[in-house]
Amino acid sequence: METTGAVEAVRREFDGSIEVLEELVRIPSISAAPEHVDDVARSAAATAAVLEAAGLEHVCQLAADGSHPYVVGEWTHAEGAPTVLLYAHHDVQPPGIVANWATEPFEPRRDAGRLYGRGSADDKAGVVAHAGAVAAWLAAAGELPCNVRVLVEGEEEIGSPNLEAFLTAHLDELAADVLVLADAGNWKVGVPALTYSLRGLAGADVRVRALDGPVHSGMAGGVVPDPAMALATMLASLVDEHGDIAVPGFADDAVSLTPEERARIAALPGDAERVKRSWGFRPGVGFAGDPGVSLWERIWRRPSLTVTGFDSHPIKGSSNQIVARAAARISVRLVPGQDPHRANELLRRHLEAVVPWGLELEFRPLGASPAWRCEPTGWAFEAAQRALRAGFDAEPVLMGVGGSIPFVGPFAEAFGGIPALLLGPADPTSAIHGENESLHLDDWRKLIESEVLLLAELAATHPS
Amino acid sequence: METTGAVEAVRREFDGSIEVLEELVRIPSISAAPEHVDDVARSAAATAAVLEAAGLEHVCQLAADGSHPYVVGEWTHAEGAPTVLLYAHHDVQPPGIVANWATEPFEPRRDAGRLYGRGSADDKAGVVAHAGAVAAWLAAAGELPCNVRVLVEGEEEIGSPNLEAFLTAHLDELAADVLVLADAGNWKVGVPALTYSLRGLAGADVRVRALDGPVHSGMAGGVVPDPAMALATMLASLVDEHGDIAVPGFADDAVSLTPEERARIAALPGDAERVKRSWGFRPGVGFAGDPGVSLWERIWRRPSLTVTGFDSHPIKGSSNQIVARAAARISVRLVPGQDPHRANELLRRHLEAVVPWGLELEFRPLGASPAWRCEPTGWAFEAAQRALRAGFDAEPVLMGVGGSIPFVGPFAEAFGGIPALLLGPADPTSAIHGENESLHLDDWRKLIESEVLLLAELAATHPS
Repeated sequence: METTGAVEAVRREFDGSIEVLEELVRIPSISAAPEHVDDVARSAAATAAVLEAAGLEHVCQLAADGSHPYVVGEWTHAEGAPTVLLYAHHDVQPPGIVANWATEPFEPRRDAGRLYGRGSADDKAGVVAHAGAVAAWLAAAGELPCNVRVLVEGEEEIGSPNLEAFLTAHLDELAADVLVLADAGNWKVGVPALTYSLRGLAGADVRVRALDGPVHSGMAGGVVPDPAMALATMLASLVDEHGDIAVPGFADDAVSLTPEERARIAALPGDAERVKRSWGFRPGVGFAGDPGVSLWERIWRRPSLTVTGFDSHPIKGSSNQIVARAAARISVRLVPGQDPHRANELLRRHLEAVVPWGLELEFRPLGASPAWRCEPTGWAFEAAQRALRAGFDAEPVLMGVGGSIPFVGPFAEAFGGIPALLLGPADPTSAIHGENESLHLDDWRKLIESEVLLLAELAATHPS
Repeated sequence: METTGAVEAVRREFDGSIEVLEELVRIPSISAAPEHVDDVARSAAATAAVLEAAGLEHVCQLAADGSHPYVVGEWTHAEGAPTVLLYAHHDVQPPGIVANWATEPFEPRRDAGRLYGRGSADDKAGVVAHAGAVAAWLAAAGELPCNVRVLVEGEEEIGSPNLEAFLTAHLDELAADVLVLADAGNWKVGVPALTYSLRGLAGADVRVRALDGPVHSGMAGGVVPDPAMALATMLASLVDEHGDIAVPGFADDAVSLTPEERARIAALPGDAERVKRSWGFRPGVGFAGDPGVSLWERIWRRPSLTVTGFDSHPIKGSSNQIVARAAARISVRLVPGQDPHRANELLRRHLEAVVPWGLELEFRPLGASPAWRCEPTGWAFEAAQRALRAGFDAEPVLMGVGGSIPFVGPFAEAFGGIPALLLGPADPTSAIHGENESLHLDDWRKLIESEVLLLAELAATHPS
């Protein structure tokens, strides 16, 4: 059995896969940081080498105008078989507060069955998983059961700003029958998942300015507007008492859940205390959001707003000054149906309406992308369910994700609405984007094995 | 005329005075910064040397338990004459954002008739003014017209936390008939002032915490409480639409203005546009505070609240995280009658009542001190008005100040309610506590000359 041989090859080569992943994690490929542009380029080159070593052909780097490099490769000798596009990304988030990491963010560290390091789960493990599945098939059978194209993006973490230009330029080279994205995650350790909805992204950097420079809070307090307080009141006006977005009409274009979706969500295994633990809630802290809506529906199908950055004078070294200006980064998650540009426009108009004292207001929109969802049914989804069930020896969960992968919707659309299968190496304790990001190594091996099985299942059941 | 000779001595020695001031400015005596404790000690030693050089006797450093050093000196050979206690402080505020300074904060720089540098106006110019007046009298007449004690504090900028202990320990050595504090300022360049009310200080560092560590704003946004937004809503709840404090009952213990005070304030020269310019209002920005109350009354006799520090993730490097915690420094100015401890207690209770989602709340009160005011009448005030009128060739303004000098009230009280004369070297463009702090050198010379005259006036008109 060639499939069995390929699965065995994954196991045999797994130590090597970990080492390859560690090499990638050592490269601080932070796409958001201009000072790391060379590291992103280095990461692209290393990614290309990993794809070459796996046996992929025509490996090269492509860049849309001004973008970080995309790395592509292919193996297209399975005549008559379907073509699968395997997606992952090699760029990473900034490390956050380095002091909060147990060890260096870009020095991988194995501990208790996990691999720690920025990008270990999101999404360098996805890159190496694709490579590992391809290499295992070629080692065991000398060929793949279907045609494969691999696309590894270098700017997923900054919202894929050049994706449209890239797609326009390279559509033919990427054409596929099904999309497999290894940038999502498992339901929990040991239980795989297929993700069929993602939230979109909107938001802005908002700066208010009152003064040329700071002034003494005693000499001027009471008549000179306080930009830090002004910004606080403006932010507070964006949400209701649950922390839900209170901008009038904001979610009017969101599509409602179908009765089936609501029933599916209601049937999910859920344990509020376990969820709190997994996110590190402090004792006594309760959930935000409308308590009349289930937890998963709140995360997957309600828009949310987070103050991800705040710039004012830090407490340390503060000198009883009214600051001249203050700024906040507002990050918004959108749900299916919502237009990101409409969302940002409503945000802008709301803030313009509430800015007090005539303060100067600068509203700089961030990258915006719509949410995505599909019906988790049909041949490809069934193939993926079988593959994950066999790979993990556990029933895969059909889930949404509150995060965003701007790539998915436009790509699936560009090829005429092909199925998109989202799986991935993270689990709820992976702290992706957080400090001490980590990957569960045994689940990662199961994921690679599942991907080996998936290629066979897709080849066997493709309807054409 | 000995007085004329002393004034001439001020003028003759003025270049030297500037150089002495520059030497003091070079020492970063930041009392709030533990890493500058040695610099504060160095500053105390340099201050002692300045007092010695001026001809003061028994110069020494005194410290209450654990305090930064106070420097004292005296000249007490004017038998039968009144005793004047001259106060200033040698500690300074942190420099704020160093990048916003035109040159190094602790490298004094003369430009267009001003001396730039942290402490140039607040209050090292006060220290050197006292020394200069004493030295001028001794040079011109070999003696002073009255007895003088000098007290230079080393922790005014952190709210004089050890003042009570210090007073208790050294009351006898400091006994005086009138207090002269060179820590206030002029009405504007060329127009001197006597300050007869100061606001008090309260406030706290407030920290809210939801999580052990940050989590992904997509994966969790909508159910995980956002501490930055929570803090924003809590801060917003502290003020009304004018930015005035909205904590119920907060100003119930404030004393009302007398009709005379209200009339005096109403008669002050005032020009809203000039005031806006002096504080660097951006175009189109309006005043905060109840528009039904005059500007000066808002600053001097209404409490105010400023967010002087805010700690969350900065925008730069933010990675779409819900932060684990956020903190703000709230600085409150109090008016005569208000109990600072009551004020902080009301603040604490209000914040405890509004903290959302059961977030952990840490409320750490900052140093608290009451406001001060006196009736600007009587022999000492009249003497000061004459001295300033002659020194500046301009009518001195009787004014309040929105800032705080915790020292004044307890000190005047400790000696049985002696008159306190507040004057000083700053002007509205001095940016004390701000970046590019500066001193108007010609006004500073006039202040030293006025102080020479004041000593004679006090000696001549003291009622005993």
